[in-house]
Amino acid sequence: MTQTVNRQFKLAQRPVGMVKREDFELVGSALPEPGEGEVLIRIRYISLDPAMRGWMNEGKSYIPPVAIGEVMRAGAAGTVVASNNPRFAVGDSVVGVLGVQDYALSNGKGLTKVDPELAPLPVYLGTLGMPGMTAYFGILEVGELKSGDTVVVSGAAGAVGQVVGQIARIKGCSVVGIAGGSDKCAYVVDELGFDAAVDYKSEDVKKALRSHCPKGIDVYFDNVGGEILDAALSQLAMHARVVICGAISQYNNTTAIKGPSNYLSLLVNRASMRGMVVFDYASRYPQAMAEMAGWMRQGQLKTREDIVVGLETFPETLLKLFKGENTGKLVLEVDGD
Amino acid sequence: MTQTVNRQFKLAQRPVGMVKREDFELVGSALPEPGEGEVLIRIRYISLDPAMRGWMNEGKSYIPPVAIGEVMRAGAAGTVVASNNPRFAVGDSVVGVLGVQDYALSNGKGLTKVDPELAPLPVYLGTLGMPGMTAYFGILEVGELKSGDTVVVSGAAGAVGQVVGQIARIKGCSVVGIAGGSDKCAYVVDELGFDAAVDYKSEDVKKALRSHCPKGIDVYFDNVGGEILDAALSQLAMHARVVICGAISQYNNTTAIKGPSNYLSLLVNRASMRGMVVFDYASRYPQAMAEMAGWMRQGQLKTREDIVVGLETFPETLLKLFKGENTGKLVLEVDGD
Repeated sequence: MTQTVNRQFKLAQRPVGMVKREDFELVGSALPEPGEGEVLIRIRYISLDPAMRGWMNEGKSYIPPVAIGEVMRAGAAGTVVASNNPRFAVGDSVVGVLGVQDYALSNGKGLTKVDPELAPLPVYLGTLGMPGMTAYFGILEVGELKSGDTVVVSGAAGAVGQVVGQIARIKGCSVVGIAGGSDKCAYVVDELGFDAAVDYKSEDVKKALRSHCPKGIDVYFDNVGGEILDAALSQLAMHARVVICGAISQYNNTTAIKGPSNYLSLLVNRASMRGMVVFDYASRYPQAMAEMAGWMRQGQLKTREDIVVGLETFPETLLKLFKGENTGKLVLEVDGD
Repeated sequence: MTQTVNRQFKLAQRPVGMVKREDFELVGSALPEPGEGEVLIRIRYISLDPAMRGWMNEGKSYIPPVAIGEVMRAGAAGTVVASNNPRFAVGDSVVGVLGVQDYALSNGKGLTKVDPELAPLPVYLGTLGMPGMTAYFGILEVGELKSGDTVVVSGAAGAVGQVVGQIARIKGCSVVGIAGGSDKCAYVVDELGFDAAVDYKSEDVKKALRSHCPKGIDVYFDNVGGEILDAALSQLAMHARVVICGAISQYNNTTAIKGPSNYLSLLVNRASMRGMVVFDYASRYPQAMAEMAGWMRQGQLKTREDIVVGLETFPETLLKLFKGENTGKLVLEVDGD
């Protein structure tokens, strides 16, 4: 361990509209020493998630906001480099909410050991991490998925969407993905086996959904909100379930969030719209991860990570999410070495 | 039977914005003769419902629209005056979808005999009719009502709302009604026993709900949509259920329906929003009516009808609904005699 400075991105101010570099301050702190029961982790990969935008806002949400001056909250994976905790040994690979920094201290709470032989570390931030768990419980439980359902997922080439669609395929459903650009659409159809994809940047989403889902949509898994949510609502089948997982199109709004004008489709179609937060399923992560790992071994569940190198690029790399530039799970690799 | 002309309100054109008299044509037709298996009904009371506005629009909904030139669809109650159907005798009181007219022919399908000794005929269009059934199945089944829940209902002094709130009180819930004007608010609190009322015309609904529901709203039953739906969404408790029964504030819009900007409250609170159409519960109406009639006999369930006399006033009387001028179930009495 030659490095003695811990680079940290701290929240400098609450963003207005799109996140920008000035909303953070990059500081060099002294490398912390683990106290009684603590471990020091060298972070290797940092998870970049749409939810991070919400954590930067003041106000009540499902978890408290990041305070001004606090290290920006983020999931991350790394290696234990010093330990005063009997549960963790130097060299262990771990994941947890470790923040946007080179090194993190942890008392072990919320820290999970993972097996780097089973899957590369970035996969534990994606398909075998929170996005994968979100997809699993969101589509199977909240979406009440049944074999034969017509499933539509937005953000289809993203960390959650790519998994939602593949699980639905595994369960015998027909799946249409909505994504931005022909590369992403080709990815979900050609590589992941979705039945069809709609490019919202070049197609009329409502018309395309009508054509791909002639009997209507049984389950719509929404990651984006806005116009795409409205297009999906206009094509619901009777007793459809809409899963509200996120609304990335709205997170950087400076005006009010666009509510779904077509929400009365819920009435006409006796349909439901339900929100979810993955943490509620924490006690069942191990069982879900085991099933997902099994599907991965059998080649039924593929995964892609979009890895950008360099902690110092954090603000600009985070923006890739909101510009829709990532395909697969967006991960920041702290150093390229 | 001295009258030989059947006055009928036919749909003349599809309304744009608020309904007006010119959207209908009042015609005098010859009194029809019942054919094989048919009965002739003299209509006494016509039900005026928010849903009628939707039936006037072109386009797919849960039932086909009224055609131009067709008698305006409406629920009604009346007396059998001639019968070629063994199930119905002259003098029987009946309810059904009989239209806005003096007399209707029916082949008996969808026609129900009712007991005018048990309750006055207008009650069969309200609390013991579709609005009452909507309230019963909406709050108990779709709203998954549990004793101790905090329940909020909009359109609280209307045909559905007044019943929703009273059922919730019977089931041991605390109930807040939202209505327009101090008279309606006094009605639901003083006469119906709601715990509180919010006057949306003079109060900040969001603030008032925060004050009346300090632990949040467990079940919100929405009849109105618009800003009031958004205010309620902002105050949901965890695992809240939102029942979408109607959106009277939006039915006469000439611009797009206002979607609920606060729909991401569903995510934060793991809440659901579900639409309903009462017809789905038709096989269970008798059992629900029996229970409701029991509550009425015991004085636990009160009901009010707002009765306007004169078939010829139909277009203006219908407007009372959309102006929020009725307290209780709005009924058009065909003749005052």
